Amino acid sequence: MSSPLTVAFDADDTLWHNEDAFEAAEHHFNEIVAPWAEADEAQRVLLDFERARVGLYGYGVKSFCLAMIAAACEVSNNEIPAAVLRTIVDTADELLAMPTKLIDGATEAIETVSEKWPTFIITKGDLHHQLRRIEIADVAKYCFDIEVVAEKDAATYRRILRRHRIEPKNLIMIGNSVVSDVAPLLDIGARAVHIPYDVTWALETAAVDPAPSDRWFRLESISDVPQLIESLV
Amino acid sequence: MSSPLTVAFDADDTLWHNEDAFEAAEHHFNEIVAPWAEADEAQRVLLDFERARVGLYGYGVKSFCLAMIAAACEVSNNEIPAAVLRTIVDTADELLAMPTKLIDGATEAIETVSEKWPTFIITKGDLHHQLRRIEIADVAKYCFDIEVVAEKDAATYRRILRRHRIEPKNLIMIGNSVVSDVAPLLDIGARAVHIPYDVTWALETAAVDPAPSDRWFRLESISDVPQLIESLV
Repeated sequence: MSSPLTVAFDADDTLWHNEDAFEAAEHHFNEIVAPWAEADEAQRVLLDFERARVGLYGYGVKSFCLAMIAAACEVSNNEIPAAVLRTIVDTADELLAMPTKLIDGATEAIETVSEKWPTFIITKGDLHHQLRRIEIADVAKYCFDIEVVAEKDAATYRRILRRHRIEPKNLIMIGNSVVSDVAPLLDIGARAVHIPYDVTWALETAAVDPAPSDRWFRLESISDVPQLIESLV
Repeated sequence: MSSPLTVAFDADDTLWHNEDAFEAAEHHFNEIVAPWAEADEAQRVLLDFERARVGLYGYGVKSFCLAMIAAACEVSNNEIPAAVLRTIVDTADELLAMPTKLIDGATEAIETVSEKWPTFIITKGDLHHQLRRIEIADVAKYCFDIEVVAEKDAATYRRILRRHRIEPKNLIMIGNSVVSDVAPLLDIGARAVHIPYDVTWALETAAVDPAPSDRWFRLESISDVPQLIESLV
């Protein structure tokens, strides 16, 4: 074994549920702006704010809640009462304090993988929040390192490979997003396993799958990951 | 040279001006809540919100602006108009988009140091914002790596040393905060250089200096760093 495989797991919606809580928060947003806009229109304005600011704000709960506050002012023509806007800060509190609900089979999968191959987590988003969730989920013990990144693009993955002295062909990334966890890995010569989650954030939906190849795979459940990797060695 | 020195620079208020912009934002906050509270009272409530949430929210512009929104609702008994609350989101936009104003001599100091010793940046705060500022300041080219961390405590510094295979006694940290850039370094057996900045955030003020020793130093200007390090080799 001259150069062993290294396995990286995404976190949000791969190891634990995330997007469903954001969906609930969006539903709350629709309700508080209902006096001024239909749900469709409210979501369109909110998504416009998120999309316009993602380059400046980055990802995560705090960015999302600041976008909801700006969008609520916009949609209501600044008529929305302060007491209602404040409930959006309460939403931030709730989303940040929310218990980390692991996906079925996730702990067993990362544990089994880590017994055979060097394993780490590469997750995108808010640094402070991601580290707290990793601590609560108690999965750091299976990992030789944790990488919280601002963007999951080819440049970022290359930087991580350099830092840990991993050759691209020896990295397998496991995640729920084609845009973040599959496409850039194929670009840099690594491999990827896609495990779709029920809900995908609008800014993460990829138009099309990468061309079929023997470098990326799709599984229904994270429980099937150890066996798939075994078959690749 | 069996184990060379490695030099780490803090970023906010060490390489570039930061706290003065937060001060200007706090001044804006005092003005918008002036109909309901004196400046002292407004600042007290804001600081209470920041302190109560720093464990959940972490550091940075977005946390600060969400705290200002909650505090403005609190201070005004929810009477503050949405149009005024929205100016706090504008403040977030401005703080995040603000040009990075380097401190006099900072570029020359990090460049000179990097020509002789492996150099990197260890900065605390919002991952996305810090990486943007580092890119704008164009200082990554002097660094073998960039570490953005959620907390600057002994455990975090130990993790960084392990990751980069640096022995504690070979690390010298340069920064403006006794709490973040000096005290934990002494705890882990490293060395530190303190360069005070004019303004220190209330959550960063240390009660007392560490005891004098030959492992920490205080300089008035970052321009004196290369010469000091030379004298330590």
